[in-house]
Amino acid sequence: MSERPVIGFLTDFGLDGAAAICRGVMLSIARDAQIVDISHTVAKYAIPDGAYLLASAVPWLPIGVHVAVVDPGVGTDRRPIGLLTARGDVLIGPDNGLLLPAAGRLGGVIAARLLANREWFLPATSATFHGRDIFAPVAAHLAIGESFGDVGPAVDQPSLVRLDVPSAKVENGRLDTGVTYVDSFGNVRLAGGAAELVAALGPIELCAEIIVATDPVASGSPATGSPATGSSAPAARATWQRTFGEATTGDLLVYEDSSGNLAIAVSNGDAARRLRVSTGARISIRRG
Amino acid sequence: MSERPVIGFLTDFGLDGAAAICRGVMLSIARDAQIVDISHTVAKYAIPDGAYLLASAVPWLPIGVHVAVVDPGVGTDRRPIGLLTARGDVLIGPDNGLLLPAAGRLGGVIAARLLANREWFLPATSATFHGRDIFAPVAAHLAIGESFGDVGPAVDQPSLVRLDVPSAKVENGRLDTGVTYVDSFGNVRLAGGAAELVAALGPIELCAEIIVATDPVASGSPATGSPATGSSAPAARATWQRTFGEATTGDLLVYEDSSGNLAIAVSNGDAARRLRVSTGARISIRRG
Amino acid sequence: MSERPVIGFLTDFGLDGAAAICRGVMLSIARDAQIVDISHTVAKYAIPDGAYLLASAVPWLPIGVHVAVVDPGVGTDRRPIGLLTARGDVLIGPDNGLLLPAAGRLGGVIAARLLANREWFLPATSATFHGRDIFAPVAAHLAIGESFGDVGPAVDQPSLVRLDVPSAKVENGRLDTGVTYVDSFGNVRLAGGAAELVAALGPIELCAEIIVATDPVASGSPATGSPATGSSAPAARATWQRTFGEATTGDLLVYEDSSGNLAIAVSNGDAARRLRVSTGARISIRRG
Repeated sequence: MSERPVIGFLTDFGLDGAAAICRGVMLSIARDAQIVDISHTVAKYAIPDGAYLLASAVPWLPIGVHVAVVDPGVGTDRRPIGLLTARGDVLIGPDNGLLLPAAGRLGGVIAARLLANREWFLPATSATFHGRDIFAPVAAHLAIGESFGDVGPAVDQPSLVRLDVPSAKVENGRLDTGVTYVDSFGNVRLAGGAAELVAALGPIELCAEIIVATDPVASGSPATGSPATGSSAPAARATWQRTFGEATTGDLLVYEDSSGNLAIAVSNGDAARRLRVSTGARISIRRG
Repeated sequence: MSERPVIGFLTDFGLDGAAAICRGVMLSIARDAQIVDISHTVAKYAIPDGAYLLASAVPWLPIGVHVAVVDPGVGTDRRPIGLLTARGDVLIGPDNGLLLPAAGRLGGVIAARLLANREWFLPATSATFHGRDIFAPVAAHLAIGESFGDVGPAVDQPSLVRLDVPSAKVENGRLDTGVTYVDSFGNVRLAGGAAELVAALGPIELCAEIIVATDPVASGSPATGSPATGSSAPAARATWQRTFGEATTGDLLVYEDSSGNLAIAVSNGDAARRLRVSTGARISIRRG
Repeated sequence: MSERPVIGFLTDFGLDGAAAICRGVMLSIARDAQIVDISHTVAKYAIPDGAYLLASAVPWLPIGVHVAVVDPGVGTDRRPIGLLTARGDVLIGPDNGLLLPAAGRLGGVIAARLLANREWFLPATSATFHGRDIFAPVAAHLAIGESFGDVGPAVDQPSLVRLDVPSAKVENGRLDTGVTYVDSFGNVRLAGGAAELVAALGPIELCAEIIVATDPVASGSPATGSPATGSSAPAARATWQRTFGEATTGDLLVYEDSSGNLAIAVSNGDAARRLRVSTGARISIRRG
């Protein structure tokens, strides 16, 4: 580790002090740490959103220890874990699927361990704030150069909890995909990239139709029906564009986002509100 | 002070630049300061909320200078003060009750002084932005090692403004308490701890009834009536739990929070919204 | 540059990770940079708001490189630019008017250059995230001491895009002015200062009338009519005060803000909500 170790930090704690308490704990142990706040406004308990944001951010951070806490199961028997990645980062957080997509973006998991070294925890461990009592101090101990092997016993990688991440499927000239995230602009990020779109629609068309199946959040249950037969929304017309400013203000556009994945935007507007979708919704795109 | 002095920083300035201006002022004087933002989204003018958050956070920060500004009286004759605490921290802010609870968590006040050394202020002092003109630069001067004795004349501790902090009272098998804070999850933090609950209800019961008296904010005036006779809300049923995930999703639970105080949550939900309470509301808990 | 170069950073990216990705990119190049987040919650695409906040903040930051990204035209032919200022700062961002007011507060532009040195960009440049791919890495290269002359070719200063900034006009005992910004307290910041108000009203009166012309945002089009003849709102009564706490809670006050400009507040309240105005609205003040 360098003299100023980097600690990436993501939670759903909000902005009212819980993240600062963890920062204080980390700085008390690793006084020279450079804490990089990734986000603390992840939707409450939204593990898929947290996993998406963590995976999006960590490849751009210097190699370091990254702590992520979106943890509805805090204090239950869900495991606290650390993942050593091929790039050399360590990811620290709950074993609920939050960390694995980020590990994938960092070359994959080299070793997984249970956080069990109580000497690195705070002396008193509460049932409701493992961010402060376990994750932050363990990360700080690693940041000052202590050994990953000392965090606790090895965990079988197949036993790690995995999220059900949306995927893209090409069928009958249609791309069926899912919403991986809605960003703060209201841009709707999708599984799959331009290659899948071309496979579905042929050479990318200037016009496409977007069909939204039932939104799992809006409807209160996971969408299961085929988007093609869903009756939930009329098709919306969109054009393929390189960037927002190439569409007319207010128009829907499909574009390849800065991670190389498909996304839907409204030029100078909010596509998620227009389409009424959130993370996990199913969307189909066909020739318009 | 260490080579990288810590400055904790809490305001109700929001996220649109006023806090950054203060950070700029501090870094211009104390270039190596490690500023730890505690929160800048304290509800506007909400001194009790700011005091709660500051007191919650500073014990976990490294020893340092901590600046807090929730200051509806800026520019009036309310005093700007500094408090030296037993732990060795200095708290800087307005004399409106904001700092004293934090000082209590740091071992108490050793010395209180008026901020009156104009050489440490910015050259021009506005009437509306003492965060920038007085509090930030004074904190930065202390952070670079200048002496607390030089901030200004001593202030009589009994003259310091104190908040009326909610307390817990056990009576007739009932715990009467008050809401000290509602966190960003909607968890309702209360005065008193598990011991008080046991004193009121006997061995902690699996079921409790929660009765909300008039909410001072909702009703526009401080609650004065006894919760037991309040007609404002029906009793809500809750169970005692160690942590959120042990209750059924959507159920109310009473738990001991990570500071050792009582709190009410909804598993994967928002208890403050459910109970319609905010800081200062009075709540009773009895056997359910 | 000092050993810990300062990078000011302002965007409309929100709080969900895009700003953190840029921070990661900057720290990967300039590991010791002290990044000062100015704001990331600028209203989406609101170049005037971003320009106001950047100009308000940078004079208080240590001399450094300051990156600002409010960039609805990202990926189109709008130019990426750098401005060297008289104070010694460099401003980095899109050529859409965002940077020039800040440059004015830093002594003016000494040299303007196109960002065209692809060796300083990230290897792959997306069409939608120049914050990450161009602005952040260029700023970091400057922060580690590389030469401003190497960012790219000179740009003619008259060709730089300029915003239409509201101004104040005194006429017939009336001050006609415009809303430059609404801060997070709801305080309405105006063009012009106390001198202009005195010129319009004579010795500052205890009472004034505030007349709001059509709000461009509320009405969906720029206000064009004269406020004096506007029928959009009745006059609101306000008093002149030094600071918020000198007015009765809930009353409107006109004051000189901490930048020396006029502003309207509600004591312990939200003036923008009361007056229903946002950035760009036209407001008249006359004797009440």
